[in-house]
Amino acid sequence: MIRSAAFLAASCLAFAQTNPAAAAAHKWRQQHERAIVDEYIALLSIPNIARDKENLQRNAELISKMLEKRGVAAKLVSVPESNPVVFGEIRTPGATRTLVFYAHYDGQPLDAKEWATPPFQPVLRDKSLEKDGRVIPLPAADFDPESRIYARGAGDDKNNVITLIEALSVIRDAGLKMKSNIKLVFEGEEEAGSINFGKILAANKSLFAGDMFFICDGPVHQSRRQLITFGARGITTVDITVYGPRRELHSGHYGNWAPNPAMMLAQLLASMKDDSGRVLVDHFYDGILPLSDTEKHAIADAPEIDKDLMRELWLGSTENAPKKLGELINLPSLNIRGMASSRVGQGASNVVPSTATATIDMRLVKGLDHAVMAQRLVDHIQKRGYFIVDHEPSPDERMGHARVAKVIIEEGGYNAVRTSMDLPISREIIRTVQSARGTTVLMPTSGGSDPRDIVERVLHMPTIAIPTANHDDNQHTFNENLRIQNLWDGIELMAALLTM
Amino acid sequence: MIRSAAFLAASCLAFAQTNPAAAAAHKWRQQHERAIVDEYIALLSIPNIARDKENLQRNAELISKMLEKRGVAAKLVSVPESNPVVFGEIRTPGATRTLVFYAHYDGQPLDAKEWATPPFQPVLRDKSLEKDGRVIPLPAADFDPESRIYARGAGDDKNNVITLIEALSVIRDAGLKMKSNIKLVFEGEEEAGSINFGKILAANKSLFAGDMFFICDGPVHQSRRQLITFGARGITTVDITVYGPRRELHSGHYGNWAPNPAMMLAQLLASMKDDSGRVLVDHFYDGILPLSDTEKHAIADAPEIDKDLMRELWLGSTENAPKKLGELINLPSLNIRGMASSRVGQGASNVVPSTATATIDMRLVKGLDHAVMAQRLVDHIQKRGYFIVDHEPSPDERMGHARVAKVIIEEGGYNAVRTSMDLPISREIIRTVQSARGTTVLMPTSGGSDPRDIVERVLHMPTIAIPTANHDDNQHTFNENLRIQNLWDGIELMAALLTM
Repeated sequence: MIRSAAFLAASCLAFAQTNPAAAAAHKWRQQHERAIVDEYIALLSIPNIARDKENLQRNAELISKMLEKRGVAAKLVSVPESNPVVFGEIRTPGATRTLVFYAHYDGQPLDAKEWATPPFQPVLRDKSLEKDGRVIPLPAADFDPESRIYARGAGDDKNNVITLIEALSVIRDAGLKMKSNIKLVFEGEEEAGSINFGKILAANKSLFAGDMFFICDGPVHQSRRQLITFGARGITTVDITVYGPRRELHSGHYGNWAPNPAMMLAQLLASMKDDSGRVLVDHFYDGILPLSDTEKHAIADAPEIDKDLMRELWLGSTENAPKKLGELINLPSLNIRGMASSRVGQGASNVVPSTATATIDMRLVKGLDHAVMAQRLVDHIQKRGYFIVDHEPSPDERMGHARVAKVIIEEGGYNAVRTSMDLPISREIIRTVQSARGTTVLMPTSGGSDPRDIVERVLHMPTIAIPTANHDDNQHTFNENLRIQNLWDGIELMAALLTM
Repeated sequence: MIRSAAFLAASCLAFAQTNPAAAAAHKWRQQHERAIVDEYIALLSIPNIARDKENLQRNAELISKMLEKRGVAAKLVSVPESNPVVFGEIRTPGATRTLVFYAHYDGQPLDAKEWATPPFQPVLRDKSLEKDGRVIPLPAADFDPESRIYARGAGDDKNNVITLIEALSVIRDAGLKMKSNIKLVFEGEEEAGSINFGKILAANKSLFAGDMFFICDGPVHQSRRQLITFGARGITTVDITVYGPRRELHSGHYGNWAPNPAMMLAQLLASMKDDSGRVLVDHFYDGILPLSDTEKHAIADAPEIDKDLMRELWLGSTENAPKKLGELINLPSLNIRGMASSRVGQGASNVVPSTATATIDMRLVKGLDHAVMAQRLVDHIQKRGYFIVDHEPSPDERMGHARVAKVIIEEGGYNAVRTSMDLPISREIIRTVQSARGTTVLMPTSGGSDPRDIVERVLHMPTIAIPTANHDDNQHTFNENLRIQNLWDGIELMAALLTM
């Protein structure tokens, strides 16, 4: 049965919250709503694009202060050129295990012109922009749970810096006892591909060591149920530029003689996928590690949200139908991020363009190596008759070959990871989350990619992701936002996990 | 035999210039080089993008003044909303025919950021920018014939406003006699598709009537030989937008489920042409009027410039090989002007884009109607499974169809025209041009499109085009330029034709 998101949301409130820390957080939050949002907005007001090192440092310092206000000694851990990781630790007498909680404070690059309001001037809207939500003043208390905060980082991932830090206040104010040692790790380069995170972990292995690494990042299930993901797809990103004439040419004097790079690129991209969505790159699906029975059942048990999502996103069809979203994110994908050649519409000139460029990402599942997959794509381009270069081709290279493609494999690719749902600690986490948040959706693989691969490779530690943002938070694009109820739910959930 | 452009250029100087008006112009020009260039630069300094009505009016007024300085009464002819046509007339006692000379003073839209120097601040460079030409001061006399003026309109088409006007000075100063009545017509909306030119002609039929309409526009042959074109391809321009999700989506969470509009567009565009360059749109080549024997011979006699051009343009292959450029511009073409979806390279985000757009132009030959050809393209898109709209599709339209394309057929399409090379006046023009400029290249069809179609439809008058710009003048793109020798040659040629 398909149920609407709104119906599911209402039904979510009906469960019995048996987790005492979550229940304490619920009560505490109701008394501190405005103070929580003020702290959240203060953090969102500091620009957080990874290359803006000065502001990233300011973010890290504010987070350190917030930790210290909760009695947690914080320090900044760096390697040369990196933005700092904010690290905090709580030792619990008699604890026999250590839980590490991770979130990141940097955000995706952006074009401020695309935003309805400036990305680093957070505003509250009475509902989402898609529903014509309007900017409203912050109430003194009793926030509408459907109101939303708009700012870069609102849902990805400063919200989880806040949920963790506020949960610490709950634990302190409610006098709750912790059972595990706790480490808090806030990264500042996740959206830049965690380029230095591996080096930071490698240089400080014992500092970051633990028994479970929680990635607090990403959106909950589209049904609004609490999602736990036990793995993440890997990723590799490739830029492709193909070449026509040295300069743009008059399309009348040279059109159907000069090779048109936009058409060449269209033909090349079209050769990568069939009409149904199946990727045609040779060996693309070779080597995929199969799912366990528990994992297959988890996918089958997840609520079906495809039809609701299609309505929400104005879609008349989906790729790879009749396969569902939940099944598809456990398969690799090939996606065009963007495409550009000369100009279009009002700005178009009647020319044969000189170059055409596309950026492609491939999302990878367990068993597929990112470097191997990038090479498979390069091989595909070569098989289509292209001479491949990794630099701007010289005139001789362009004249010497019928087709030339510059192919740049971006740094920062990683492999997929997957923690077994059958581990004792996995089962304990599932029980804890359900006691705090009711019915869960369990996914073997998250569609997105995150630094789990680095953590597993460097620290040999299992990872599980606990997202808290709304699924329609516009992460990675303009008008990023967080639904207020998701902030409240996140604090309750983190209180439960921190006292596990 | 293939000869280099430089060799051909040198050889062009060797012919005996038997035309007395051209010879007088040659001598006169040598004495007035700086004054000619000053007048040209003054005209180029006034911005001339068709929608900038205020500056277009200033252009028209300056041209009127230039005509009046030569004793030619000028007037501005308009219809509501149009930029003015500058009209001048010289009645020759005893003349039995009227020759109409046309050029346009408006220029292609531009993005000033792409230009090496501002488009409306003309500069002289010692050679072309591609050869690292540097800005040099204007000499007092004896311009280097290989130096070039850079500005919007330099080669398309303010140069021909100047060649005609300076030729009038030659005729007056050298005391040459005219044999025909002369009309001068300078349009201000050619680059906007001559949207009002037909109305202006229709409202003033007798004013513009004559026996031959010379289109003084476009580049000479790539061999630098004087080109005469007896026809022009028609054109129709189509904007296509295809739709994915309502908003950009995270490519991890939704990639290979949400339809990717960039991939859809790539597949759609790729379906329009095969790898060799043949257009796959049904009936695309149906109805083409065959060339006459004279026309076929003219194409065969044209110097082969394909290999030189490939070197100049850094091309390793051409479309539709082994057919040559001269043959191909007598066939219809389908060209992608530009393509855009989300962002690429450094600016790319890891998203599934929301829309993708391409602008396509089709160049048409005699026998193909522009509206019919646009419909053939629309039919092709429909056959690929698209629901076609001519407006931004509503959510219901997007959800109601697996694939939705917005297809906008731009206004201002026109059909191809072709004047017979065998008419007595055609033969006389060929002889006159050869007596002024030596060996000619005769082409049944120019690759470009111009208002010939409108002239033939409204005035029922034959048209022939006499280009004077260098072929590498970057018309319609940034860094447009004119080689100084082409300006000199043009003045000689116009003096010969005006006294025909």
